[in-house]
Amino acid sequence: MKWSKAGPGVIPAWVADMDFPVAPPIREALERRAATDLGYPSWESHVAPEVLLEAFAERMHSRYGWQPSPGHARAFTDLNQALQVVLHHVTEPGDRVALHTPAYNAFVATVTGMQREILPVPAVPYGSSWRFELPDLSTCTVVLLLNPHNPTGRVFTHAELTELAEAAERHDLIVISDEIHADLTYAPHRHIPFATLLPERTITLTSASKAFNLGGVRCAVAHFGHEATRKAVWAMPGFLYGDANVFGVEATLAAWRHGDPWLEEVMRLLDRNRHVVAERLPATIGYRVPEGTYLAWLDFGRPGNAERLEREAGVLLSGGEHFGPGGENHARLNFATSLPVLEEMLRRLT
Amino acid sequence: MKWSKAGPGVIPAWVADMDFPVAPPIREALERRAATDLGYPSWESHVAPEVLLEAFAERMHSRYGWQPSPGHARAFTDLNQALQVVLHHVTEPGDRVALHTPAYNAFVATVTGMQREILPVPAVPYGSSWRFELPDLSTCTVVLLLNPHNPTGRVFTHAELTELAEAAERHDLIVISDEIHADLTYAPHRHIPFATLLPERTITLTSASKAFNLGGVRCAVAHFGHEATRKAVWAMPGFLYGDANVFGVEATLAAWRHGDPWLEEVMRLLDRNRHVVAERLPATIGYRVPEGTYLAWLDFGRPGNAERLEREAGVLLSGGEHFGPGGENHARLNFATSLPVLEEMLRRLT
Ligand SMILES: Cc1ncc(COP(=O)(O)O)c(C=O)c1O
Ligand SMILES: Cc1ncc(COP(=O)(O)O)c(C=O)c1O
Repeated sequence: MKWSKAGPGVIPAWVADMDFPVAPPIREALERRAATDLGYPSWESHVAPEVLLEAFAERMHSRYGWQPSPGHARAFTDLNQALQVVLHHVTEPGDRVALHTPAYNAFVATVTGMQREILPVPAVPYGSSWRFELPDLSTCTVVLLLNPHNPTGRVFTHAELTELAEAAERHDLIVISDEIHADLTYAPHRHIPFATLLPERTITLTSASKAFNLGGVRCAVAHFGHEATRKAVWAMPGFLYGDANVFGVEATLAAWRHGDPWLEEVMRLLDRNRHVVAERLPATIGYRVPEGTYLAWLDFGRPGNAERLEREAGVLLSGGEHFGPGGENHARLNFATSLPVLEEMLRRLT
Repeated sequence: MKWSKAGPGVIPAWVADMDFPVAPPIREALERRAATDLGYPSWESHVAPEVLLEAFAERMHSRYGWQPSPGHARAFTDLNQALQVVLHHVTEPGDRVALHTPAYNAFVATVTGMQREILPVPAVPYGSSWRFELPDLSTCTVVLLLNPHNPTGRVFTHAELTELAEAAERHDLIVISDEIHADLTYAPHRHIPFATLLPERTITLTSASKAFNLGGVRCAVAHFGHEATRKAVWAMPGFLYGDANVFGVEATLAAWRHGDPWLEEVMRLLDRNRHVVAERLPATIGYRVPEGTYLAWLDFGRPGNAERLEREAGVLLSGGEHFGPGGENHARLNFATSLPVLEEMLRRLT
């Protein structure tokens, strides 16, 4: 984990990276690239990033039974860029974006920073997990779906997604579906690409960066099932939104094509860790074991937790107040670390 | 060089990469990065890419006596992106862009693809070099300056740049100054940043990718001396145009801070090669030794050269017809290769 932004001795559990070295095939691909040609890519007879879009389509199909069209996809540097591009093209300031809240802090910042209004779809504790109360979406333009959901770790069920799809259809909405955590779904939960339910209204955003720990390489894929948005983005000058970099493409190809044995091992660790959190956390802190992601969304029953815990406990979490409505009394902990570090973090929280 | 797009046995002298391995400090920085942390960058206490913008400012100052403001600069994936972003913000379809022609094919494609009109500033043979005939710029919005100039290799003099600056001032123009080849200037020619002459009208585009052979890493810097454009771009959502990648930033930092011994050696090779071209080229092919760049702009006195030469001579050059007005009878050769390959290319042209 990155220690630099935390004070001395403070364990930084706020950063959304995993504390594990990347998969050997990824490292090898990157080292090979660093040792050879850094010029304009030829991608073995492909024009970049076609090969990336094909690998994306292959993976979605083999892993999730979804068959995207590579020709409807394009690369971005990252998901937040892709989200900003889509919102820029399909919404105006003042438009409403439905969002399951609390929600990933950077996306809350994007939506509000772009002067779009969040229509909360609030999370409500439900059994050992969560449910979301779908409000009337008739005043919205867009649904921004995070599935699996950050920060609760909820993996939406077929029934929930179907309800959302029906509402989107009824109210003529575009659904931006961020599925970056899909590969981090714990069995028996199962990731369902939203595009399989409502292909022509869905814009899917994904990247290997989360499951394969590549936050800095900057390579994401967006698939535009929604034709008008696709046409609007495709009508822009071809490089307006930038160009894929060779390392990002190499890393993503290696991850998606050769990274699964590593990922399975990581999932075993994360699966253990999500339960370790449940076992070791003091009873005063609310926690619902996530169904996906390596994020623990902790309920402290009062605000100001990040500052207090950094100061008093020497653990740096993400403050829940940045996650929109319903976040205030919470903080988000990243449990993608080794057992000793995790245990030490949890000990400090007690 | 990349052989993949050329047929078997064809020497590809069209690609704008150098046929040399990258500088050891760059390779080391990239290998170190590939072997360590690929997560969200902390840039040793900096927020990326501040450290990049500072390195840019340092280099412009130490090498060219220009003091840019890091706060007026930002990263892009590449120069063509930066150009498209600027044209998107400051011009409309139908607007006129003054361009020293013939000009870099990708930029001709960008300007015409964006339905902006090129106002040619035509190159005219002059002594052993070129001069450009500045037309009336009163109908233009923007000057797109390539200095050093691609494909002629002309390095503009202080007098020429001053004349251009006066015209830009007189006609209230924005100058987009692409200085990506600046580090590839042969003494006694001297690169003069256009921003030193007309700081408040100039948008400077640069990258380490050309001089340090990093075409695929995708990292460029644009400095917005022109306040209205800066405000327009800064008013956009912060990630709309993407985010810098760790490898691109690492490579650029290593290049600008530790790459100069390598660059000096490369410049000696290129200096030799530009004269080898002059010595070995048949007298029927026109050539003026460039003052910067590793590009030889060859005059065959008739059109269709790229196809003909690939077919008949087994050398793949860039066809001059893609370089705008004045390009038709030409082809562009990349001489950044080893002596044996260069000699073989030239032999095939005879
Ligand atoms: C739901 C979600 N989307 C996207 C991202 C990554 O965004 P980006 O690709 O812009 O870094 C994250 C990272 O934590 C995330 O949790
Ligand atoms: C004048 C000029 N500008 C820019 C570039 C590079 O553009 P980009 O950074 O978009 O690859 C080149 C490459 O050959 C060039 O010659």
